[in-house]
Amino acid sequence: MRYPNIAILGATGVVGSEILNILGELEVPFNSLKLLSSARSAGKEIEFKGKKYTVEEATPNVFDGVDLVLASAGASSSKLFAPEIVKRGGVIVDNSSAFRMDKDVPLVIAGVNDDDLKNHKGIVANPNCSTSQLMLPLKPLHDYATIKRLIVSTYQAVSGAGKAAMDELMENTKAAVSCEAFENKVFNKQIAFNVIPQIDVFVENDYTKEEMKVNLETKKILHLPSDTPISCTAIRIPVFVGHSESVTVEFEKPITAAKARELMANAYGVEIVDNPANREYPTPLECAGKDPVYVGRIRKDLAFDNAISMWVVADNLRIGAALNTVRIAKKLIEMSLVGQGHPEN
Amino acid sequence: MRYPNIAILGATGVVGSEILNILGELEVPFNSLKLLSSARSAGKEIEFKGKKYTVEEATPNVFDGVDLVLASAGASSSKLFAPEIVKRGGVIVDNSSAFRMDKDVPLVIAGVNDDDLKNHKGIVANPNCSTSQLMLPLKPLHDYATIKRLIVSTYQAVSGAGKAAMDELMENTKAAVSCEAFENKVFNKQIAFNVIPQIDVFVENDYTKEEMKVNLETKKILHLPSDTPISCTAIRIPVFVGHSESVTVEFEKPITAAKARELMANAYGVEIVDNPANREYPTPLECAGKDPVYVGRIRKDLAFDNAISMWVVADNLRIGAALNTVRIAKKLIEMSLVGQGHPEN
Repeated sequence: MRYPNIAILGATGVVGSEILNILGELEVPFNSLKLLSSARSAGKEIEFKGKKYTVEEATPNVFDGVDLVLASAGASSSKLFAPEIVKRGGVIVDNSSAFRMDKDVPLVIAGVNDDDLKNHKGIVANPNCSTSQLMLPLKPLHDYATIKRLIVSTYQAVSGAGKAAMDELMENTKAAVSCEAFENKVFNKQIAFNVIPQIDVFVENDYTKEEMKVNLETKKILHLPSDTPISCTAIRIPVFVGHSESVTVEFEKPITAAKARELMANAYGVEIVDNPANREYPTPLECAGKDPVYVGRIRKDLAFDNAISMWVVADNLRIGAALNTVRIAKKLIEMSLVGQGHPEN
Repeated sequence: MRYPNIAILGATGVVGSEILNILGELEVPFNSLKLLSSARSAGKEIEFKGKKYTVEEATPNVFDGVDLVLASAGASSSKLFAPEIVKRGGVIVDNSSAFRMDKDVPLVIAGVNDDDLKNHKGIVANPNCSTSQLMLPLKPLHDYATIKRLIVSTYQAVSGAGKAAMDELMENTKAAVSCEAFENKVFNKQIAFNVIPQIDVFVENDYTKEEMKVNLETKKILHLPSDTPISCTAIRIPVFVGHSESVTVEFEKPITAAKARELMANAYGVEIVDNPANREYPTPLECAGKDPVYVGRIRKDLAFDNAISMWVVADNLRIGAALNTVRIAKKLIEMSLVGQGHPEN
C-alpha cells in the first residue's frame, strides 16, 4: 500500500496547528506533506518531526497529486477548494460547516459511524465541536436504549471562536481585574466574568446556528429519525479551552444510571470521572489538552421516567475539531478509502 | 398603625448588608432597627440613613420587643433563634434553607404567592437563589398554560457562596493571568477560567442539594403536584454576581413564544430583553445590581410540542436573597401580618 500525500489546509490557524500536532501523535503514515494557508501566511516555516516545511498558498493546482486534505480554513475556503480537490482524485476531510448537511457527504465521528465513510464521494465532514463531544458517550446509550429526546445546555470555551477570542478573554480579564476600560471586539459584550447567550448567528426560529447544528448533526451522525425532538441552548463562558455540556437524554427503553455508566466506561474515546462522594467530576480546565470525552454527574434525570442526566466535558480543539479530523484521516487510510481516486470512479 | 420594630440578623454579611440597603431603597417603614451578628462582628458601626447603628451580638433576649426579623446568618443560626423570635411574638423572614420545606412555613416570592403569607406561624422562608429568579417569569406562564415539566441548567455566580468566594475568584484570576500558582480554599478546584459542576453537597440520588432545592421549592411556591417532573443541573461559573439559567418548560396547554413573551412582559418584577436581530439578550454582568429578573432567548423549545426555552438572568444577591426578603417584609407589614403577635395567637 502506498502511503497518501497529505495536505493541511489552514495549517497556521488554531485548529490547523493542532491537526499537525495530532498527525504526529497518532503516527498517521504519509508519503508527502503540504502545509497550506491563505496568501497572508504563506512563506512561514513550520517544523514537524524534525523537518522544516514552508507554508504554501492554497491554490487549485497545489492539490495536484494530493490524496488527502485535512481542511480547517473556514466554510468559504472549503467551498472554493473542495471541488478542485475532488476533481483531482483527492479526499477532503473538512472541519467547516460547508458540507455537513449535504446528503452526499458523510458526517463522521471516528468510532461512532465509521461505516458512513464508505459512502464518501471525495468529501467527508467533521461535525461542529458541540455536537462532536456528545456523540462518543451517546452512541453506546443509543445502541442500548434508543434515544427518544435530547436537551442540551452548553458551556463553551472562547477558543471555539479562534485565537483572537482567546487573546480577548485574556486582555479583557487583565483590564477587568485592574478596573481599566476595555473595548471588546471579537465578542459583542464583555466576556471576562460574564457569559454570552449567543454563539454564531440567529436563524428564523430564534435558535442560533450553533444550537441547530446540535439538532441536525446529531440526527445525521446517529441516524436518528428526522423528527427526533432535540433542543440546545449554546452559551459562551469565560473559559479558554474545553466545552462542557449539561445533557438530558430520554430513551425509548428503561436504562439505569449504573448501566449508562458501564456502557460509557466501555465506549471508545470516553472516560468516566464520576464519584460524587469524593467530589470527582470533570471540569474543562482539567480536560484541556486531553483526547477523551469526559463524563460525570451521571444520574437518573428526574424530569422523565427513562432518562439520564450527565455532564460532558472535552477539549473543543481536539475531539471537537483536530483530533476527530485526524482520526477520520487514519480510518480512511486503514479502510483504503484514499489514495486511489474515490469510490464511484 | 404602629410601625414595626425590625432587626437584621447577619447584618454584616454579603446578603445582610444588601438587606439593609434595600430596606432603605424600598422605604420600608419601621419604628426601631437593630443590626445583629455573631459575637465576632458585634461592636462594628454601620451607618443607615444618616444614623449610626452599633452591631449587637445576637442572643435570645435581644429579640424582646422585635416584631420582624430579616435573617441571613445561615441555617444553624436560624434554627437557634427562630423559636426565640416566635416565642416573643415576632416574625422571622429567613433566608436560610432551615425551614423552607417545613409544611407550617410559607415559602414565598413576593408577587408570586403572597397569599401564602396569611398562613404563617411566625416563620416565613425565602427560597434558594436559583429557585427565586425562576418563579417570577414562570408564574404567569403557569397560570396561562399549566407547567407539566421543567428542566433547568444553571450558570451561577460565585457570590452565591459568599464574600470569601468572590475574593477567591479575584485572587485566583490574578494569579492565573500572571501564571502564578494559587491554592483554592473556598472551591475544591480552580474557579478562574473554569466551571465546577457542584453547588452544595450531594444527596442520595446523586443530585446536589442545590439542584433538589429547585425541584422541591418550585413545587411548593407554585403549588404544583408533588410528582411534577423537574430536573436541575447546577453549575458554578467564574462570574462575580448574577445567576443565569437555561430553562426548558413544558406545558399542559399550547403556548407560543410570542404569548409567553407577552405574559412575562406584563408580569411583576420581570423585564424582557429579547431581540435576536439586534443581538439583545440579558447577561449577568449587565443585570448585577438591578431588581428585575431579565428574560431573553424566548423561543419554542424544539424538544417538545408545547414547551418554551428561555434564558433567565438576575442578581442572585438581590432577587435571589435580599430583595425578596425585604419585599416579603413590606408585604407582611401591608397585610398587617406583623406587629401584633402572629395569626393563630
